[in-house]
Amino acid sequence: MEIRVLNEADIQEVMTMKEAIQADKEALKLYSEGETEIPLRTNIDVEEFEGQNLYMPGLAGSAAGIKIASVYPNNIRKGISSVPATMIMLNEETGEVSALMDGTYLTRLRTGAVSGAATDLLACKNASVFALFGTGGQAQHQLEAILTVRPIKEVRVFDIDQERASAFAHQMIDLFAEKFEVEIKTVASSKEAISGADVITTVTTSTKPVFDSKDLKPGVHINGVGSYTPDMQELPEEIFAQASKIYLDTKDGVLNESGDLINPLKKGIIQKESITGELGQLVAEKTPGRQTDDEITIFKTTGSAVLDIVVGKAIYEKALELNKGQVIEL
Amino acid sequence: MEIRVLNEADIQEVMTMKEAIQADKEALKLYSEGETEIPLRTNIDVEEFEGQNLYMPGLAGSAAGIKIASVYPNNIRKGISSVPATMIMLNEETGEVSALMDGTYLTRLRTGAVSGAATDLLACKNASVFALFGTGGQAQHQLEAILTVRPIKEVRVFDIDQERASAFAHQMIDLFAEKFEVEIKTVASSKEAISGADVITTVTTSTKPVFDSKDLKPGVHINGVGSYTPDMQELPEEIFAQASKIYLDTKDGVLNESGDLINPLKKGIIQKESITGELGQLVAEKTPGRQTDDEITIFKTTGSAVLDIVVGKAIYEKALELNKGQVIEL
Repeated sequence: MEIRVLNEADIQEVMTMKEAIQADKEALKLYSEGETEIPLRTNIDVEEFEGQNLYMPGLAGSAAGIKIASVYPNNIRKGISSVPATMIMLNEETGEVSALMDGTYLTRLRTGAVSGAATDLLACKNASVFALFGTGGQAQHQLEAILTVRPIKEVRVFDIDQERASAFAHQMIDLFAEKFEVEIKTVASSKEAISGADVITTVTTSTKPVFDSKDLKPGVHINGVGSYTPDMQELPEEIFAQASKIYLDTKDGVLNESGDLINPLKKGIIQKESITGELGQLVAEKTPGRQTDDEITIFKTTGSAVLDIVVGKAIYEKALELNKGQVIEL
Repeated sequence: MEIRVLNEADIQEVMTMKEAIQADKEALKLYSEGETEIPLRTNIDVEEFEGQNLYMPGLAGSAAGIKIASVYPNNIRKGISSVPATMIMLNEETGEVSALMDGTYLTRLRTGAVSGAATDLLACKNASVFALFGTGGQAQHQLEAILTVRPIKEVRVFDIDQERASAFAHQMIDLFAEKFEVEIKTVASSKEAISGADVITTVTTSTKPVFDSKDLKPGVHINGVGSYTPDMQELPEEIFAQASKIYLDTKDGVLNESGDLINPLKKGIIQKESITGELGQLVAEKTPGRQTDDEITIFKTTGSAVLDIVVGKAIYEKALELNKGQVIEL
């Protein structure tokens, strides 16, 4: 069999953020319409090295593959990623392995793109101020996604680590300021970040809300990307009561894993019926999107193998078309 | 991360059958001693192409990895394997993918080697006549394994497709006749094959016994390799009552999957207590091996991910040591 190996640079070369956003929309639509099979993730503990191997296979429409990610906190000491990840695509017509790609980069790309998809579908058309909370490994693609779908003029970056925020902002200015004709700056407080912001994305590891809901501008759209465990929480609970549309990437994932939803549901601040639906239903136009310019909309994502598989397939197909990456025979 | 890609030729170059047999023994010992974690296989149907993707991850001692095999009967028409397979090894210390190897060849090698391991542990020391039933894709390594562990002088090859048997025998003469100083020939009947045979291996897709137990020589050792579903059966049921030692590679696998054991158990020809144990217990010397030269011993295997993982790790380590295969950066 012929296997195409695609590293980070190859993926960057073949796949635009716009294409990744499109692929994520298709992925969530397939998911919400029941056209996917995503079995329970297999977790294997490697006690000797305090690590865990995660195997996430699946099928989405006509795309098949598996992401293998490992969680090894001790890797940091060795100077390598604490969550190394590799995506393996199968040819769905023959079952042969068709591609191997950098799973860490794929994860960043598809996670940014899913906020881009939600923002494209839910934010005000003329949104011009974007507030970004968190400047870790996922932040760059979160920023790029929003810049891709809305005419943002001002980006406010906030992180409790101000030094990191500043370094990140400088990098982002180099990458995006000219391309998107945008001003990118750090701000000193959470309040300063969100006052007048049209779009907010939170991508932190916080266990407490990162902003105060009373400072929100009417009409704001919020993407919640951190909070992927019940202990983690980024969003103030009362905004779920204020919001007129609440979308999730997958109900199964968010309602079981994210403190952002688990806590307000547990406290009765909202009921399950308050959730408008899954983003894939909105892609399919089965549920309503934004109806006025001053309603608050929220999208909460915890991620899904379906995003890896469909974006992975799109990357593979473009790499094949453009003949990029390294081809090995096995 | 650095990934080593090992094709069939690379594996042949770095791994001898003797080493594969040793690795299989270690694998089964780890399994029987509870030092492995082999989750349930994940099967995903790809209805559109009448295929199935099988994901088999696991951890065995300090070896971690996953075999991805697909079952696509229609591949035959396309001139490619109907069961393409790829083995992926992880570095158990960091969780990174460390190797990608030809899973079809690995399967043949480790399946041959497990019969070699059983024969080494159970057959008479001076066994000189070997009868091989079946000449499909697995047969070559089944033959090589027995030639590796016993001083075989005569090999009798039987297949209901006589033409295929003859072609296979000629290939095997080219490969092994000189190296092992052995005569390899086809025989016209099942009876001719087993009369006086010291070791028998059945590796067919039969649903009915492939020989008659009354023709067996006392002291014979039998490896049952086909019969990996309840509908398949190669071994006459009454030999389980005649045998003084019955070993399985894994009780879980054989007792749930193989008609060879399921049928005589269901009919009451033997009881579960008649099963001596798992081969790994014999490797660990926790259960008895052959005690006299005229008792009949049986080994039945349905395979296990633990064999793939431990043999895969041994292959990877030797390839690293000898710097074989192609190294890619991801």
